Amino acid sequence: MTLLEKTRSGRDDPRLAPVAKRENLSPGELARRVAEGTVVVPWADGHDLAKPIAIGRGCRVKVNANIGTSPDKSGLEEELVKLRAALDAGADAVMDLSIGGDIRGIRRRIRENCPVSLGGVPIYEAAFRCSSRRRPFRRMTAGDMLEAVRSHVEDGMDFVTVHCGITRAAVDFFRDKGRICGITSRGGSLLARWMLANNEENPLYSHFDEVVDICRSRDVALSLGDALRPGALADAGDRAQIHELYTLGELARRAKTRGVQVFIEGPGHVPFDQIPAQMRLEKIACDQAPFYVLGPLVTDVAPGYDHLVGAIGGALAATCGADFLCYVTPAEHLRLPGTDDVRQGVIASRIAAHAADIANGLPGARDWDDAMSRARKARDWDGQFELAIDPELARRSHGSAPPRNESVCTMCGEFCALRDDDDLF
Amino acid sequence: MTLLEKTRSGRDDPRLAPVAKRENLSPGELARRVAEGTVVVPWADGHDLAKPIAIGRGCRVKVNANIGTSPDKSGLEEELVKLRAALDAGADAVMDLSIGGDIRGIRRRIRENCPVSLGGVPIYEAAFRCSSRRRPFRRMTAGDMLEAVRSHVEDGMDFVTVHCGITRAAVDFFRDKGRICGITSRGGSLLARWMLANNEENPLYSHFDEVVDICRSRDVALSLGDALRPGALADAGDRAQIHELYTLGELARRAKTRGVQVFIEGPGHVPFDQIPAQMRLEKIACDQAPFYVLGPLVTDVAPGYDHLVGAIGGALAATCGADFLCYVTPAEHLRLPGTDDVRQGVIASRIAAHAADIANGLPGARDWDDAMSRARKARDWDGQFELAIDPELARRSHGSAPPRNESVCTMCGEFCALRDDDDLF
Repeated sequence: MTLLEKTRSGRDDPRLAPVAKRENLSPGELARRVAEGTVVVPWADGHDLAKPIAIGRGCRVKVNANIGTSPDKSGLEEELVKLRAALDAGADAVMDLSIGGDIRGIRRRIRENCPVSLGGVPIYEAAFRCSSRRRPFRRMTAGDMLEAVRSHVEDGMDFVTVHCGITRAAVDFFRDKGRICGITSRGGSLLARWMLANNEENPLYSHFDEVVDICRSRDVALSLGDALRPGALADAGDRAQIHELYTLGELARRAKTRGVQVFIEGPGHVPFDQIPAQMRLEKIACDQAPFYVLGPLVTDVAPGYDHLVGAIGGALAATCGADFLCYVTPAEHLRLPGTDDVRQGVIASRIAAHAADIANGLPGARDWDDAMSRARKARDWDGQFELAIDPELARRSHGSAPPRNESVCTMCGEFCALRDDDDLF
Repeated sequence: MTLLEKTRSGRDDPRLAPVAKRENLSPGELARRVAEGTVVVPWADGHDLAKPIAIGRGCRVKVNANIGTSPDKSGLEEELVKLRAALDAGADAVMDLSIGGDIRGIRRRIRENCPVSLGGVPIYEAAFRCSSRRRPFRRMTAGDMLEAVRSHVEDGMDFVTVHCGITRAAVDFFRDKGRICGITSRGGSLLARWMLANNEENPLYSHFDEVVDICRSRDVALSLGDALRPGALADAGDRAQIHELYTLGELARRAKTRGVQVFIEGPGHVPFDQIPAQMRLEKIACDQAPFYVLGPLVTDVAPGYDHLVGAIGGALAATCGADFLCYVTPAEHLRLPGTDDVRQGVIASRIAAHAADIANGLPGARDWDDAMSRARKARDWDGQFELAIDPELARRSHGSAPPRNESVCTMCGEFCALRDDDDLF
């Protein structure tokens, strides 16, 4: 039985207790939410997962870091260094998006070194195989695509992103309307081309039950990819995107009926004012399934700062229903992220997630801030560094401009308001 | 006559036309808003201001950069380099907060080199004078404080921050309730100590009309400082803070009656979910006067990343009524900002301001994003760099990992979705 089936049938799974504890939920409450599909615990059979997580209603907002090779940069060692950077910075989950080099070998090595939930994107493997055999992607069969899902499941991924919701109807809406940035999802672009070249439906849609059953075999969670996510503010919320979202809602119901946990992927580039509606719509269309968003990015004009742009959108999204933030790094739109990009991306998303946890009134979320503010008021610098989301950076920054008087910083010096208050209040 | 008096009496001021044009407003519309007090144009008599701005209803959200010496770091040249960095990064206004070195000489040199509206904080000068004469601040007289306002006005500041709203009543509320971080405003802390030591009302409150008349003499705008702004999430929205806000509203009415433009300063550390209410309350309490906020910072735990934390809060604040964002730099809470901190702080606030302009439906705001997205779709890299909010960083980042094929980047390489769409749609 899968975890979803167990929770539905009222059977206990000892794996839930530690996860529930970290969320300040009772195991029974967590089990109820998994059963109703508002929370997922991506944890494949046989994975000795040191830091499992719950994602969804009433849980701390989680952060995912994407790593992985590209055709231009495909070193295993570099990816393991990035994995370590993501974990050190506090990523709750990791996805391996490798599309270059020995992708299966890389995936397995990443899994060996990954104590958190690990996800992958099978269609990339399928595309990579075609490319390395110099075979056009359009010649691929449904069987090839299912095979890539199977290899991810066999390799022990805890969740897989599958772009099942981009249907011919969605692509037709899309072609009718036009967009500035077309399809920016790699998986979506591949499948759209496949459908148009073959004049057939998306195999991952038409063979959806098989996709689900492959995942069910090792209790792998399904992350339903948003192939038509907007890649420009101008493209947000168009008919194609929302058509796909409602298709994902239908597929999510089918997956759950077959015993597989599911969450929904979302945008992307979205104007700040449209974020609440997009988040609400996902909850309506997908029966409150957990929502996993990329950013959202609230402006297109800031390459080099897209981690910050994504943190702005992510904070609002996560106060409006998003449960899981996929990080965006400063390298977005410019190059494959390096180690420092990974670190900055994770921290930026964690700040957004934490701001939302506080805003959402998650019990205990603000304790961390209050402890920091007490240390700040006491000018307890070591305490502040230890409590900082990035202790090393805080220590280095303060130390780079040593104050004359150690109890203050160089901003106010002798005019430190916090110190001067001490005798007053 | 001051600008406010002219607009109220229906007289034309030729200085308004170029300002209105940049805001896509007619000069008449801008004049009406200045007259009603919902927009300010901080532009002192006799200042040959190359880049004047309008701040408030229907205008692009503006960004201020604070520079200035501290007792520990007081070099003029360094401040001029920071000024240049702030201007290059696109700051709309600058405040000189110097409290160390030859502060009057530094202020004048900054003004000579500053093509944008320049503000200052007279109480810092007053405190600095006391300190350099080894005289306790509590011995200062109302006349000393007014003298500092006068010297700022004489030196040609376009606006001054004066902490007139921290009254004895506000301090009493404050003492009753307790806070984690007490008073974090330097000006507020000085004045609270003065009041308690002398058992008298805040001279800047009791002599408010004189403050206004000094500003009126050269048409300097008043920025009413929020001395009791929260310095911790836990302290946000307490009775003392809101008491002061309503006092600022009364003072704003009095200033406008006497012909002086006025805007209101706001927090500070505020949980994300409290930002809309705080912004709305300012508009209610202060007759829709422009609101100038510091951040707001939506978590206390991220020293080293407070520019990003402030951008999250600033974007929400500016969609809920804030008109003017005071930047926060990565150095906040750690040290006096350096040149790179200034640059990062300005860019972060500009991203937040721009995201809000788009969200607010400001006509034309999204054109920039659409142009960027078109360049992105066309893989026009030079176009993307030119349009980027920080062209140099974008170019450097892309160039640091050169792709094999120049039409793409190293993230997707041959699997570039944007390129592959070209033949489809």
